[in-house]
Amino acid sequence: MAKIKVGIINVTGYAGSELARLLYRHPFAEVTSVAGRSAAGQKLGQVFPHLADMELSITAELEGRIDIAFSAMPHKASAEAVLPLLEQGVRVVDISADFRLKDPAAYPEWYQFTHPAPEALCSAVFGLPELYRKRIKKAQLVANPGCYPTSAILAMAPAIKAGIVEPDVIFDSKSGVSGSGRALSLTTHFCEAGESVSAYGLEGHRHLPEIVQELTLLNRHRPVSVTFIPHLIPMTRGILTTSYARVKKGKLVGGKDELRKLYQDFYAGEPFVRVTGAPPSTKHTYGNNMCLLHPVLDSRTNRLVVVSCLDNLVKGAAGQAIQNMNLMFGFPETAGLEALAVYP
Amino acid sequence: MAKIKVGIINVTGYAGSELARLLYRHPFAEVTSVAGRSAAGQKLGQVFPHLADMELSITAELEGRIDIAFSAMPHKASAEAVLPLLEQGVRVVDISADFRLKDPAAYPEWYQFTHPAPEALCSAVFGLPELYRKRIKKAQLVANPGCYPTSAILAMAPAIKAGIVEPDVIFDSKSGVSGSGRALSLTTHFCEAGESVSAYGLEGHRHLPEIVQELTLLNRHRPVSVTFIPHLIPMTRGILTTSYARVKKGKLVGGKDELRKLYQDFYAGEPFVRVTGAPPSTKHTYGNNMCLLHPVLDSRTNRLVVVSCLDNLVKGAAGQAIQNMNLMFGFPETAGLEALAVYP
Amino acid sequence: MAKIKVGIINVTGYAGSELARLLYRHPFAEVTSVAGRSAAGQKLGQVFPHLADMELSITAELEGRIDIAFSAMPHKASAEAVLPLLEQGVRVVDISADFRLKDPAAYPEWYQFTHPAPEALCSAVFGLPELYRKRIKKAQLVANPGCYPTSAILAMAPAIKAGIVEPDVIFDSKSGVSGSGRALSLTTHFCEAGESVSAYGLEGHRHLPEIVQELTLLNRHRPVSVTFIPHLIPMTRGILTTSYARVKKGKLVGGKDELRKLYQDFYAGEPFVRVTGAPPSTKHTYGNNMCLLHPVLDSRTNRLVVVSCLDNLVKGAAGQAIQNMNLMFGFPETAGLEALAVYP
Amino acid sequence: MAKIKVGIINVTGYAGSELARLLYRHPFAEVTSVAGRSAAGQKLGQVFPHLADMELSITAELEGRIDIAFSAMPHKASAEAVLPLLEQGVRVVDISADFRLKDPAAYPEWYQFTHPAPEALCSAVFGLPELYRKRIKKAQLVANPGCYPTSAILAMAPAIKAGIVEPDVIFDSKSGVSGSGRALSLTTHFCEAGESVSAYGLEGHRHLPEIVQELTLLNRHRPVSVTFIPHLIPMTRGILTTSYARVKKGKLVGGKDELRKLYQDFYAGEPFVRVTGAPPSTKHTYGNNMCLLHPVLDSRTNRLVVVSCLDNLVKGAAGQAIQNMNLMFGFPETAGLEALAVYP
Repeated sequence: MAKIKVGIINVTGYAGSELARLLYRHPFAEVTSVAGRSAAGQKLGQVFPHLADMELSITAELEGRIDIAFSAMPHKASAEAVLPLLEQGVRVVDISADFRLKDPAAYPEWYQFTHPAPEALCSAVFGLPELYRKRIKKAQLVANPGCYPTSAILAMAPAIKAGIVEPDVIFDSKSGVSGSGRALSLTTHFCEAGESVSAYGLEGHRHLPEIVQELTLLNRHRPVSVTFIPHLIPMTRGILTTSYARVKKGKLVGGKDELRKLYQDFYAGEPFVRVTGAPPSTKHTYGNNMCLLHPVLDSRTNRLVVVSCLDNLVKGAAGQAIQNMNLMFGFPETAGLEALAVYP
Repeated sequence: MAKIKVGIINVTGYAGSELARLLYRHPFAEVTSVAGRSAAGQKLGQVFPHLADMELSITAELEGRIDIAFSAMPHKASAEAVLPLLEQGVRVVDISADFRLKDPAAYPEWYQFTHPAPEALCSAVFGLPELYRKRIKKAQLVANPGCYPTSAILAMAPAIKAGIVEPDVIFDSKSGVSGSGRALSLTTHFCEAGESVSAYGLEGHRHLPEIVQELTLLNRHRPVSVTFIPHLIPMTRGILTTSYARVKKGKLVGGKDELRKLYQDFYAGEPFVRVTGAPPSTKHTYGNNMCLLHPVLDSRTNRLVVVSCLDNLVKGAAGQAIQNMNLMFGFPETAGLEALAVYP
Repeated sequence: MAKIKVGIINVTGYAGSELARLLYRHPFAEVTSVAGRSAAGQKLGQVFPHLADMELSITAELEGRIDIAFSAMPHKASAEAVLPLLEQGVRVVDISADFRLKDPAAYPEWYQFTHPAPEALCSAVFGLPELYRKRIKKAQLVANPGCYPTSAILAMAPAIKAGIVEPDVIFDSKSGVSGSGRALSLTTHFCEAGESVSAYGLEGHRHLPEIVQELTLLNRHRPVSVTFIPHLIPMTRGILTTSYARVKKGKLVGGKDELRKLYQDFYAGEPFVRVTGAPPSTKHTYGNNMCLLHPVLDSRTNRLVVVSCLDNLVKGAAGQAIQNMNLMFGFPETAGLEALAVYP
Repeated sequence: MAKIKVGIINVTGYAGSELARLLYRHPFAEVTSVAGRSAAGQKLGQVFPHLADMELSITAELEGRIDIAFSAMPHKASAEAVLPLLEQGVRVVDISADFRLKDPAAYPEWYQFTHPAPEALCSAVFGLPELYRKRIKKAQLVANPGCYPTSAILAMAPAIKAGIVEPDVIFDSKSGVSGSGRALSLTTHFCEAGESVSAYGLEGHRHLPEIVQELTLLNRHRPVSVTFIPHLIPMTRGILTTSYARVKKGKLVGGKDELRKLYQDFYAGEPFVRVTGAPPSTKHTYGNNMCLLHPVLDSRTNRLVVVSCLDNLVKGAAGQAIQNMNLMFGFPETAGLEALAVYP
């Protein structure tokens, strides 16, 4: 079987280069074009020595016929890059936020631009396979979820859907520095980020509306109140989100066994979600596409606490994008994503 | 003025060695005896090269006359070491948990031992100067707070005392690895702790009852419900606690200005608490005795969020212990604690 | 084709668990037995959550028929475990040092034990495929090189063999902490190893005789003088070795172009050695089997300086062991080792 | 006694802010003016929260009368800033390289600019107190040594001066990332620098001529051949240099005892150099002004190996600058520099 041809837009960021890394070994897909304006004309291996074996040259725009494009552009620019491709009939997984939110009014509010194609927001499918697998298979445009929202939504989906918690959730997230991207800033300077932890986005992080949207959809369209506080911690990869919600009176009377069963049933058969018996570490997902979930009941306060772990560049970005591609093209869902986490 | 003579019990742990480091430059106190059974007979500088200038030898027990003893022993052993000293009239700052809890029944429940001197729990003063300064001055025995509780209680004290939040608080804490001590464990192995984050103590961490006790005392003895989840992150020093509580209806109508004023007034004149205008980083407290507080109002959910930062070995342990000693002996409260944070 | 059956002795260390991780995706080999005395009876996934998908149980000894055993035991114990297997006709790759040195007298001197089977030292093949590929193919017993020696020998082999440098070499190596293993020690405590660098083995590190042996063999059995100083640096994986040797008078008159050609010719066709045009970083080998080499000529002092990088757990241990297995069984040399480095 | 007034030029870099941190507690000096063009108009505490207590505002140029200026400007710009001050009679410690090299021709070669005041190169004193204490006391202009050269020169000075080694030295240095400064670059991005080590400056690092100059002066003006290879390792502060030189025939026949005595005698009475009995770690100098030296004899190859450790921002920059100031103004040499290293 001929491999499908894949293009990556903005290969020069961390999500883009991670796509290239993972796709290099994909049995049914081949990267044939990589675009990145700042590095156009360079060999991929000059910019990323670990990708030297790929023998591709970076171009300003995607070149040649492609079956699917991944866009790893920043928001706003991504929509601009993706819309012409859609018109050409190319299938797209957009890693930016540009097609995640259903409400066009959210874009000026959260991202400071007017969405150029509000109608595309309806047809775009939110690319969380655990919730939207069927629709993803048929989608032309998949909006790949954010790294934080993936960890948050997967953590609370079973509880929200089952109606066992009050619709008022706190997500306290801890992210490695690669989530801030490859662009330079004092925040990501080794000497500033190392041996330190800080909270940010206290006025409202852009991933909040995405979390609220999806939890609300799970809650039969009844609004869910969400406080989301991200933190930057001194590591390169990984997100751990600790989620808190009060258990409704009369719910979860079966205690931790009932809780565990609820989560295991919800994710039964999922190749990339595992409900763990012991508290997980992000290290156990380093470089692979797994999301680890550990729900516990704080019986003193009758509060549900869920710890979720993933690699922000894999299940939180490039890996999930490939998982979506696999669904879109009818490949085995795990194709190219079978590598175990690199430990220690 | 002759310097007071100080003894340190269990100098071989991180809290003990930090006491020695800080006291070395204290203008009114001198370390004259350092005990540590595992290293008895060795020079202090053999075990800790950075303390080589102190020219002290480690003994099995404290030796010579001392005016004050700091105990950095583990719980249970600390009480056993401290009680005879109290009988001899020596003043003591105990860094362990052995005299922090007022309720003797808490010890079997949380620390798996029956307290050997329940009556001492009454006379011991909880060593948080911001709350108990007057009593600390006269105390013979000060129970130095835990690192997590210091960050948690200081974060929520103004709000709980003012009655502006519901008595139901979540503390999500992120700690550097030195909080786990110098004893060996797989958890603190560089390759296991590095590039990873995990939650622990999900069944109930031992610092919980201490937090509950103090917040309840601040709330006119009305119980405060607390969920406390600590996390281990890949850095050596520092704790950042993110605290969450719902604002009571009709409270904080003045918004963030009122909130900021409440915190600034509460801590006015405090030498070691600073209410910051921007989100703080633990790096800004590296090696010094400051606690940085940053309260914000999540107006979407009407929730108070407070970010607090400190160095777990200084304001969270040895520095606060010296602050207590300064109060007990009538020294300037900041004596020996004036060093700025080491940045970057 | 049926997969060969593989056993791993001492799977509970870092080399052992890395073997399991890499072999999990091997197309022609299957791990069927994993031994580890300290964890016998446990599921592999309990000890190593990232290996949970392997669904193996740890036993005290290898069980069932196996075609090849990897021993990741400490020295001395490894020989004891390996010798009975050899007698049973099982092929073995020994990751310990027990069969690397040709001279039996080296064992009492460097490893403090008398070798139990000096004759096996003759038949064992030093498992550096770039030097001994042919012999490895036929070997029953392959002595997998140490992590430091792999980086050192590959760096200097072309120059020593070509006779362009004086036979007096300095190797200054910087290693991540995983090289010290998973056993607990103060040296590998996060708080001691983090934010620090130190030299060790100043009296003579055990990897020295192995380096001397191989360089001498390359130099037509004329002795090569070697100073080897390893350093511990605050990262988990990776070794970078900087090698220094004086260029012989009249040699390398063609300068850096001649130097580069010498190295490229020497390693032409090697799947796991790459001569780089820019100084390499260990990060570019994270989790994969590549050794990156960068030779430069310090024309001011007429000294050859070679920078070599590899992942100590892969090309420095488990990956090279699998490369050896591939050769021994006639598999493609790169089978199971194709994954690109995980970056960033 | 009135404190002297100190100005800091380019306070916004790491050397500049470290000067401020250390001087804040100096008993005889007070920072009265801090300049930094990029941040002019801001409070010092806005740029550096750890310096908030200093209550200084950053100005474009130094303001008011000052007794001494520290320049932490980049090379070339520093000379331009310093020369007018010298004309006004202000004493200066220049942390840049602009007055370190005696040969004006070295500036175009190594720093790509023509030196604006070659005559000042004669009068400037190289600010290594262990070698030039007397001259520093009387100097108007002190050229503070580079961080690498401080670690290299102190390591080899006793051996070179005593003539026990061949005048051909290799310095293999490992530096924390703060040595690269606070300016943004991909090299210092957390995700690029973390979990990695690399060599750089392979074509000749700018600190080389400074090392050669000083070792040659120690060797009775006979040239010393030097290979110097710096490495970047994943930590914030600290330099460890491993130095290699061949022992001359007939020298050091007394072995390691003679070696140790040579070093101890050379540095007898030095407040900031310690010859250690065990291999030192950079951690033991974290935040303080000590240089730790550990000389060993590799008797197999008759090579001297010296390990030297220091904090690149303290003994390698700001601390040494203050040590020089203390000498220039007749203060106790250790004034303001007494803090012990922050460990762990």
